[in-house]
Amino acid sequence: MTKHFLELQDISPDKLVSYFTLADEYYDASQGKESRDDLSGKTVANLFFEDSTRTANSFYLAGRRIGASVLDFTGAGSSLSKGETLLDTARNIYAMGIDCFVVRHVSPGAPAMIADALDVPVINAGDGAHEHPTQGLLDVYTMYRELGAVEKFKGLTVAIVGDILHSRVARSLCFALKTLGSRVILVGPRTLVNKHFEAFGVEISYSLDKVLAEVDVLYFLRLQRERMSSGLVSSLKEYKFLYGMTQNRMALCKDDVKIMHPGPINRGVEIDPEVADGPNSLILKQVTCGMASRMAVLYSLIGEKSD
Amino acid sequence: MTKHFLELQDISPDKLVSYFTLADEYYDASQGKESRDDLSGKTVANLFFEDSTRTANSFYLAGRRIGASVLDFTGAGSSLSKGETLLDTARNIYAMGIDCFVVRHVSPGAPAMIADALDVPVINAGDGAHEHPTQGLLDVYTMYRELGAVEKFKGLTVAIVGDILHSRVARSLCFALKTLGSRVILVGPRTLVNKHFEAFGVEISYSLDKVLAEVDVLYFLRLQRERMSSGLVSSLKEYKFLYGMTQNRMALCKDDVKIMHPGPINRGVEIDPEVADGPNSLILKQVTCGMASRMAVLYSLIGEKSD
Amino acid sequence: MTKHFLELQDISPDKLVSYFTLADEYYDASQGKESRDDLSGKTVANLFFEDSTRTANSFYLAGRRIGASVLDFTGAGSSLSKGETLLDTARNIYAMGIDCFVVRHVSPGAPAMIADALDVPVINAGDGAHEHPTQGLLDVYTMYRELGAVEKFKGLTVAIVGDILHSRVARSLCFALKTLGSRVILVGPRTLVNKHFEAFGVEISYSLDKVLAEVDVLYFLRLQRERMSSGLVSSLKEYKFLYGMTQNRMALCKDDVKIMHPGPINRGVEIDPEVADGPNSLILKQVTCGMASRMAVLYSLIGEKSD
Repeated sequence: MTKHFLELQDISPDKLVSYFTLADEYYDASQGKESRDDLSGKTVANLFFEDSTRTANSFYLAGRRIGASVLDFTGAGSSLSKGETLLDTARNIYAMGIDCFVVRHVSPGAPAMIADALDVPVINAGDGAHEHPTQGLLDVYTMYRELGAVEKFKGLTVAIVGDILHSRVARSLCFALKTLGSRVILVGPRTLVNKHFEAFGVEISYSLDKVLAEVDVLYFLRLQRERMSSGLVSSLKEYKFLYGMTQNRMALCKDDVKIMHPGPINRGVEIDPEVADGPNSLILKQVTCGMASRMAVLYSLIGEKSD
Repeated sequence: MTKHFLELQDISPDKLVSYFTLADEYYDASQGKESRDDLSGKTVANLFFEDSTRTANSFYLAGRRIGASVLDFTGAGSSLSKGETLLDTARNIYAMGIDCFVVRHVSPGAPAMIADALDVPVINAGDGAHEHPTQGLLDVYTMYRELGAVEKFKGLTVAIVGDILHSRVARSLCFALKTLGSRVILVGPRTLVNKHFEAFGVEISYSLDKVLAEVDVLYFLRLQRERMSSGLVSSLKEYKFLYGMTQNRMALCKDDVKIMHPGPINRGVEIDPEVADGPNSLILKQVTCGMASRMAVLYSLIGEKSD
Repeated sequence: MTKHFLELQDISPDKLVSYFTLADEYYDASQGKESRDDLSGKTVANLFFEDSTRTANSFYLAGRRIGASVLDFTGAGSSLSKGETLLDTARNIYAMGIDCFVVRHVSPGAPAMIADALDVPVINAGDGAHEHPTQGLLDVYTMYRELGAVEKFKGLTVAIVGDILHSRVARSLCFALKTLGSRVILVGPRTLVNKHFEAFGVEISYSLDKVLAEVDVLYFLRLQRERMSSGLVSSLKEYKFLYGMTQNRMALCKDDVKIMHPGPINRGVEIDPEVADGPNSLILKQVTCGMASRMAVLYSLIGEKSD
């Protein structure tokens, strides 16, 4: 059976931990400090229907540093405008001899649809507001590198702050953290935090200040500017006043609280520069851990021992 | 004398067959299942003045899988808008140390002009309505893989259906098939099939239904949407009624008729999903054979034994 | 201390000559005629906030031919439009494991700002009207290949003709030539040649005809079309009449005068085709020398013996 990496919703703790182990093994190579050719002869295709130079390049580098060839179809959407269907685009590229697809699409389920139709491993690189599972993986892997042991997730309290409603990043991270036994608090304005998230075993708070003292990790989501124009947030100023991370708020946190953000940052909105660049910030470490995490996923799907 | 691959109009049967032989040799490597470095140290430049991610990537992969470095100048048109001439763009890039150009341009003859001016092998990747010779080669190579022997082209009847008038694909395919001794019938509305094609030794029919029973291969061309706005086709519905391939029409064909299309497909216009995805379809096989065909052309132009 | 390549303003003669020596060593490899892996395992990132396929590709090829991996962030500007700062974009990409940045930006000083903030070598690939130091280096390296000896720069007279005011190419070339002891005359209309350039030890002339007889090299700058609309140049016809290089003007020059231009050329404006393509032209040789020059800079910054 072809294996995929489509979502973290039903992942097992063992599976998550196996990715940590692989990522640890690839950590040096992921930074270019060591040369690996585990995927030599394999071709990975970035099939991006939403433009994202940075994510595409991070998969490109991860693929190259593990020995694969990586092909960019970042303008893949252009064929759709010619009347071709999503599946025809994928089938057509697959017929060039592709061993793995990395798919980003604005529609939830698009990567799964390709995985169903073609006999090729598919990695979901973000599908609408559904999931962004390699981001979720790299987020918990970054925490794991800090914690030093998987068991410590059980004692961990993480607040995810911001636009939960529209965030595939929040969803994937929730699933990963709940799988590892952590306590998760979703924090944001009523318009952006949907009550139904409680079904996933998480808590909800509309006040950031109330949770600061008890969290070990504060994970800030990117605020999309278009949320203002659609009336879900009244103003940047109010948003920042209620949910922005400042030095003042840092004083209310545990000394060793960790600050995370998936990027790109709106400095001065979600997070002040002193916090983003401060000693508690793991933001750039997330990028670094992302390389190793993506190498782990690629190897796990198409590496030699991966049947 | 520098060799080029500019058109199939005057190609010899022996030359075509030599490409089949090379493509057979590269078939496994073209799918990434084997590693070849025949063009190690060579640099191929994709010089695309019309955007085409997919064709550019297919040349990229073909080049990489035979060991060449491949450079993408897919936005090459941008320099022209700065006032630079086509030849200056080509000369400038050539001065970086390029061993082969793959050129796509909206103007017929542009690749030939570059081939005349520079001392470097040029592959025509489509020039206006003139020719798309690697497409023509991959089309007959796909048929050859089905037929099993070159001699069988002599008994083959192929109908090319659709917008013959504007199609570089149709022209290249016609020349290749006539070179190999096949019978060719061009099928389409009077506005899109020009009488002067008869000079190439092909037949013309304005009725698809009348030819279905006698053809071995039905090759459907892509219908450009802009043909409707320019009045050459009255409506998609009428076009499909007269020239679209349906299951009903399949019933009127030989059992082992082959269905081909250069892609991207307009499902439900030129061809119905049941036919495109059915057992008689060679559409994805064309893409696969394209990789091997393009490797054969590259090797033949700049491989070691190539002069 | 991290080394950078940001400007030629204060470069020493010895340093310039050391680049010539390295470029000579890489000359064959720069044309793909030899394989080098001096930067094997290193990753170079093109961080282009202004689109420039050709310059990006020339760095790509230079990097590849010396064994480095090269990553293109040519659409890097898109992240800025998402509200991210320039430095956050750079930091984020750096966290993927990058050994050297090649930065182009519309703002003078942007590459230096990145060099200050991050612990990674930065090459300035053009920053506003400030400098374009690899262009300046390749220009003097091209002259050096003609002259055969560094000492001969002392007897050389070079006229730089055109829009000096807005030209980072002119500034970098001025600094390089003055460093090597050459005489430099800036030539152009009063609106486009700023008197303050005299501070750099160069002469100024508003008449091209008056300097033709005494120069060894005529370096023509590209005329940006937008200079007309902003009223700095009254018409293309007048500009060409006063400052365009023609066969008639060639007759007034030394027999072995050299003609140079950074490209892309406006044929018939700055320079007539007979001159651009004539025996005195070094224009394409500049591109060729650019490959070797950029390899020299890359090696000097991140090669093994480089610290």
